[in-house]
Amino acid sequence: MTRAPDMPAPIEEDWPAIVLVRPQMGENIGAVARAMLNFGLAGLRLVEPRDVWPNPKAFAVASGADRVLERARLEWRLDDALADVTFVAAATARPRRMEKPVWGPREAARRLRAAVAAGERPALLFGPEAAGLENEEIARADAIVTYPVNPGFPSINLANAAALFAFAYGETRQETDLPAWFAAAPSPPASQADLDGLFQHLEEELDRGRFFHPPDKTALMRHNLRAPFLRAHLTKQEAQTLRGVIKALTIGRGGRKREDPPA
Amino acid sequence: MTRAPDMPAPIEEDWPAIVLVRPQMGENIGAVARAMLNFGLAGLRLVEPRDVWPNPKAFAVASGADRVLERARLEWRLDDALADVTFVAAATARPRRMEKPVWGPREAARRLRAAVAAGERPALLFGPEAAGLENEEIARADAIVTYPVNPGFPSINLANAAALFAFAYGETRQETDLPAWFAAAPSPPASQADLDGLFQHLEEELDRGRFFHPPDKTALMRHNLRAPFLRAHLTKQEAQTLRGVIKALTIGRGGRKREDPPA
Repeated sequence: MTRAPDMPAPIEEDWPAIVLVRPQMGENIGAVARAMLNFGLAGLRLVEPRDVWPNPKAFAVASGADRVLERARLEWRLDDALADVTFVAAATARPRRMEKPVWGPREAARRLRAAVAAGERPALLFGPEAAGLENEEIARADAIVTYPVNPGFPSINLANAAALFAFAYGETRQETDLPAWFAAAPSPPASQADLDGLFQHLEEELDRGRFFHPPDKTALMRHNLRAPFLRAHLTKQEAQTLRGVIKALTIGRGGRKREDPPA
Repeated sequence: MTRAPDMPAPIEEDWPAIVLVRPQMGENIGAVARAMLNFGLAGLRLVEPRDVWPNPKAFAVASGADRVLERARLEWRLDDALADVTFVAAATARPRRMEKPVWGPREAARRLRAAVAAGERPALLFGPEAAGLENEEIARADAIVTYPVNPGFPSINLANAAALFAFAYGETRQETDLPAWFAAAPSPPASQADLDGLFQHLEEELDRGRFFHPPDKTALMRHNLRAPFLRAHLTKQEAQTLRGVIKALTIGRGGRKREDPPA
């Protein structure tokens, strides 16, 4: 497409990524893609969509945002969709009592914009239309995004929720004085894959030491154990260092030889 | 519905009204109603919808915002839909060269909120999905609302556009320091019906004086003539006074008796 020299340039940015977890209706996927591209966001990821993908209904509703849908990454596990992500925000209508920062869409937009400027690869998660994200999925997020809705009618359409964030994000492109929430770290930030590896390593070793007891408290204990590391927003170097710490603490434990965990 | 005493109260405000002009798809009408009520707006008006009304598709998509649809005012002429409105904003994607203020959704929200606080009855007009509002419809507005979209993909979904405004409007409810753009006037503001009467009266008399010449320039001349009166945002008293002025100027003109225009 040729443009006159004085036309403003189109905007297509891959970060922050928008991650739709178990989206139900193809129409909503298409509407999200359209709303994203309206405000210059082009990085869409789908986790376990209900219907076949590519979904013709999504393309029909996208009204021309086909390239966002064509490039959308399809994954069957949230872990895989977030493997290269370094900062996770989760949109939820219901406030949940978790030790995480809670932002409105405007605050979230400014924070994630600052993250991108500092070299992070942030993502915003939306859950399925009816049920929203599960607690387990929200627990892995670094921050929670909620919308300041009418208490008398809070249920917001998925595409509208994406549109509000994308609009707010577009506005931050004009801001030049974003606070340095994300200092450009000497070492790059840990990806979700780095963190998954760290937590898996730690939990395996703790399991071996019968740390998770009683069994019905295991999920809660895992969550509480992860929370401070998530809040710390580790660098890649720190995640590696911590795995070295675990190794050092466990070597030769119980006189039983064990394989090294995958690096 | 009973609420616990510490629950925040639901919000349902009739002003600003959202006016959908010739909406095509019932689904979009329902999606607009849902987005409005998400942020506490309940005054919906429909002008000449394409399909039968009430439209079951609208109710299906509204996800419970039925009372907004049930109370929606249906009109066949824009004039009738705006008769009691005192301030008209028109949403349009394409900037048009008109002598009107142009606001983004946030600015529009703050302005219309200030208008409501001063006793005005403002409305925001959205055109049909594909074509948008016609020039003639935009010409009658006091202000234009545009969205800061990606130049590479500017076409925004109707419900998303309504949602962005409603969201921005909801945010203004927290603001207590809105500038007094609309001073509470000693006389209430002129309604659109008052203005229609004034313009009709004036144009009839001008027509009698062969003011509108040549005929192919009539529409433009009417538009240019109305513009300063619209910008002045007349009070009801001023609109009446101006009609008295027209009468005084035309009485006995041409030796031809004429009926008084309707008051």
